[in-house]
Amino acid sequence: MACSRFEYVKSFEQDDSILPNVWIVIRIDGKKFHKFSKTHDFEKPNDENALNVMNAAATAVMQEFRDIVLAYGQSDEYSFVFRKETATFKRRSAKLLTYVTSLFSSSYVMQWSKWMNLPLAYAPCFDGRVVLYPSEQNLKDYLSWRQADVHVNNLYNTAFWKLVLEKGLTNQEAEAKLRGTFSADKNELLFQEFGINYNNLPAMYRKGTILLRKRVILGEKSRQAVVPLHEDLISSQFWKEHTEILGKYVPGTYNAPQTLPRLVEMQLNGKELDDEAEEPQNLAGTS
Amino acid sequence: MACSRFEYVKSFEQDDSILPNVWIVIRIDGKKFHKFSKTHDFEKPNDENALNVMNAAATAVMQEFRDIVLAYGQSDEYSFVFRKETATFKRRSAKLLTYVTSLFSSSYVMQWSKWMNLPLAYAPCFDGRVVLYPSEQNLKDYLSWRQADVHVNNLYNTAFWKLVLEKGLTNQEAEAKLRGTFSADKNELLFQEFGINYNNLPAMYRKGTILLRKRVILGEKSRQAVVPLHEDLISSQFWKEHTEILGKYVPGTYNAPQTLPRLVEMQLNGKELDDEAEEPQNLAGTS
Amino acid sequence: MACSRFEYVKSFEQDDSILPNVWIVIRIDGKKFHKFSKTHDFEKPNDENALNVMNAAATAVMQEFRDIVLAYGQSDEYSFVFRKETATFKRRSAKLLTYVTSLFSSSYVMQWSKWMNLPLAYAPCFDGRVVLYPSEQNLKDYLSWRQADVHVNNLYNTAFWKLVLEKGLTNQEAEAKLRGTFSADKNELLFQEFGINYNNLPAMYRKGTILLRKRVILGEKSRQAVVPLHEDLISSQFWKEHTEILGKYVPGTYNAPQTLPRLVEMQLNGKELDDEAEEPQNLAGTS
Amino acid sequence: MACSRFEYVKSFEQDDSILPNVWIVIRIDGKKFHKFSKTHDFEKPNDENALNVMNAAATAVMQEFRDIVLAYGQSDEYSFVFRKETATFKRRSAKLLTYVTSLFSSSYVMQWSKWMNLPLAYAPCFDGRVVLYPSEQNLKDYLSWRQADVHVNNLYNTAFWKLVLEKGLTNQEAEAKLRGTFSADKNELLFQEFGINYNNLPAMYRKGTILLRKRVILGEKSRQAVVPLHEDLISSQFWKEHTEILGKYVPGTYNAPQTLPRLVEMQLNGKELDDEAEEPQNLAGTS
Repeated sequence: MACSRFEYVKSFEQDDSILPNVWIVIRIDGKKFHKFSKTHDFEKPNDENALNVMNAAATAVMQEFRDIVLAYGQSDEYSFVFRKETATFKRRSAKLLTYVTSLFSSSYVMQWSKWMNLPLAYAPCFDGRVVLYPSEQNLKDYLSWRQADVHVNNLYNTAFWKLVLEKGLTNQEAEAKLRGTFSADKNELLFQEFGINYNNLPAMYRKGTILLRKRVILGEKSRQAVVPLHEDLISSQFWKEHTEILGKYVPGTYNAPQTLPRLVEMQLNGKELDDEAEEPQNLAGTS
Repeated sequence: MACSRFEYVKSFEQDDSILPNVWIVIRIDGKKFHKFSKTHDFEKPNDENALNVMNAAATAVMQEFRDIVLAYGQSDEYSFVFRKETATFKRRSAKLLTYVTSLFSSSYVMQWSKWMNLPLAYAPCFDGRVVLYPSEQNLKDYLSWRQADVHVNNLYNTAFWKLVLEKGLTNQEAEAKLRGTFSADKNELLFQEFGINYNNLPAMYRKGTILLRKRVILGEKSRQAVVPLHEDLISSQFWKEHTEILGKYVPGTYNAPQTLPRLVEMQLNGKELDDEAEEPQNLAGTS
Repeated sequence: MACSRFEYVKSFEQDDSILPNVWIVIRIDGKKFHKFSKTHDFEKPNDENALNVMNAAATAVMQEFRDIVLAYGQSDEYSFVFRKETATFKRRSAKLLTYVTSLFSSSYVMQWSKWMNLPLAYAPCFDGRVVLYPSEQNLKDYLSWRQADVHVNNLYNTAFWKLVLEKGLTNQEAEAKLRGTFSADKNELLFQEFGINYNNLPAMYRKGTILLRKRVILGEKSRQAVVPLHEDLISSQFWKEHTEILGKYVPGTYNAPQTLPRLVEMQLNGKELDDEAEEPQNLAGTS
Repeated sequence: MACSRFEYVKSFEQDDSILPNVWIVIRIDGKKFHKFSKTHDFEKPNDENALNVMNAAATAVMQEFRDIVLAYGQSDEYSFVFRKETATFKRRSAKLLTYVTSLFSSSYVMQWSKWMNLPLAYAPCFDGRVVLYPSEQNLKDYLSWRQADVHVNNLYNTAFWKLVLEKGLTNQEAEAKLRGTFSADKNELLFQEFGINYNNLPAMYRKGTILLRKRVILGEKSRQAVVPLHEDLISSQFWKEHTEILGKYVPGTYNAPQTLPRLVEMQLNGKELDDEAEEPQNLAGTS
């Protein structure tokens, strides 16, 4: 063959298969989303629609990779958990990492106009990393770490933006006022000065978004979908209710709210998504 | 701090810094682009506009990362070469890999409607890999390997689709007719049966696209831009003409054709691109 | 400092820390021990003294590294299991690997003359590898794999050498006779032709050697030592009896035979070993 | 096969092949040699015989691995340089690392009594690491770094021990006297107070030991051997004289001193070494 003289360069590619029997977590993170959120006028401290672009992009990733048993998102980051037995892409690290990151990135752009009014000013960008967790406890602690993070950040941000937007403090003044305060202080401040009970704020802001594969009951039929939950995953209660995550990987039943979240509705109506749902194993297993 | 109990999980992240003083090549590759090109009715054997979506996405990546000294694209793949001294992201492999792959993916979607008539039916997806080359010869041979590949494939595809689209052969018949033939045979077949001199076909199809940073002369001013070339990089001539690639990394002058390629024109007119061009080092060096 | 111009080369050393919370197994293997055993006239199929040189070298390694909770040896190989929480050498892979391999190698030479009559003809050499196991089951299965291996090999070798040494078959004839036979066949052959009940052969040959840290009762006192066991570790019984391996790492009591094995006696009498036993944690934790 | 149920554990072994076309340096380092040298009464600041045990062990390693083109030793460390094209052990990192470290360790013990009067009190131990260098300049700078290190350390140690052993200073007093001094100061001190011209001290102490494969002329015949040099490898002169290191790997001629070093003589007389010299390629290439 004509190109054989150069083919030796293939031998410089190095094997990066992941150790068997460990949980594979891929976390993606927005690059310079501080600037990105400003450019696109995100509501402060939380922009429900912008969060849903993230959720919708993550949903697209979960639909493509059936071995992702849970995804967890908050702010401009999302974590995807592959079950520890996964053989997707022969567990090659770069393959898993880049497919997830790439599909999330392109889906983010595709989903944008379905949720946002402003057009995208420029291409968003995400980095990704692979982290391995050998035990269930490690995995739970990882997710708890991310959820504890959203709590700390969101409580701070809620107080901060109330002070800035409603009390007219400058950013510096607000920061100075909050410096060194504990959670209880910030809860108290929100209640005393703004009449806000933090625990009544939308769960998505306080807890982030957990995506699970569930069976959605529709009258007498049921269909599988990726559903958003905003529960406390630090508690053991969560893991008792959703045993499919660590165990048999068989989707449980979705305990749906009165009104189906738009994220779920779009899947149930979506033609393109239907197609993929029919042949999921193949999609994930081949390049 | 409230979340300290869980923070130990950070220690599971592993260092992946790349060996100093080697060329870092990141190659991205379309996932299932056979199906993707069918769905979006790509012209056969080459769709000029679809190739330009790839080129435009790659240009966006090069504008973001100033340490990429060359990019080379063909079909649904693109290779990016970071100069061997780069300290971008402290040479952390996953950071470099995912930023490039992510930005390429989101830019591909952003660029789509500027070149294509059909809307995107679904989110495209690319995998990426990092390959390291210690010597200049290794690097040249890597790029030669990719360009030899485009030659072999494009000659075959050109003959194949001529037989199918103009002679009415079935795919199987065309494949059977070409099986075992040499390059000379296919050149002869194109000339005898279709009056085509293969070497006169567009260089982009035969050679792929090389992106370099060059100074574009505009009357009395000049501006830096990423420009597409379709030259033979296997020859030593190429490396003599573009000494900036391996050496001092100072852009040479663009030997522009009569009409500026649209890819270049978009950069010179582009507002958003201008902004980035003003503070390039910062963009690439930080997260 | 005078050498600063060159010190940049230190930055080429790459981090190789092992993922936390996994069992670290280091297995060493004799290089060309077929030739080595011939040169030194090892008894066939098993040379008790040569095996004890291996056992004594492994004992020296376990005395040095308190975080090794079990070692398992057979033929010319030895596996060392570090508890999964070990922080020895900050879990740096090459450090753990080379110290174990180096100390085993030098100890093998030091121990030789205490067990063998012939002098060492040349320096023996061992390779080593690191393998990681995330779960207890994986670890047990690893050790079971090695013990199943010694069973298969030793039964074959026992039959083979009986045929060669007692029946006068050539190596080729013996091999031909055993080809395709099952374990039951070889047991039967040993019994019928040589009056040997395989299960009565020395346990060290049939089961290999397990080294554990135990408390040895000496009259009214007790002392810690590394003791050799030749038990069936594939059975769950083994793990119930020696709970210290996977659990609390507190040595159990040695169920000593009538006569203390020489390997243990040497430790109890050994002056140099005593010294080390007094300050073990320090030895392992620093370079 | 009986053990198949457990064999899956083999899949946990991970590939560690080294990138092609880079220099592979393996550096071994004595563990706690401060204590070791005290226990064995090494002469201060340099013990010629103890250094020769190191040199002899390194020579044994070079005889075994023909792809080592240079070794450099000083104090209790030794670096081995594999030519960048080496395919020994398929460039598997752990194999190369452990064989070198193991053979050095066992050879050290084997060589001990040929050079030292005291018996070995306990087994010496060495750690090892693999470092990769892409360019010739990187490799030269690595070796220069080690040789600059020996200069700095030996000049200090020479002055220190003169003050302690001949002037009767305590260790603390000697250290205080030398603190903050430059090389010139220490040279001056040696000359003024002890009549010593540092540059006349044995080259092995000042420059360390370089081992190269050379042809030794013996009357009308010549034989290949590993020979010790004590030259300045920081200078370009060294690399011009010994072109075989970076280039064609064909041994040059040994410029032997009046009296052959014992290290070389032992090789020329050594029977066991002869045997190995006859089939070197095989030894290194297989396990």
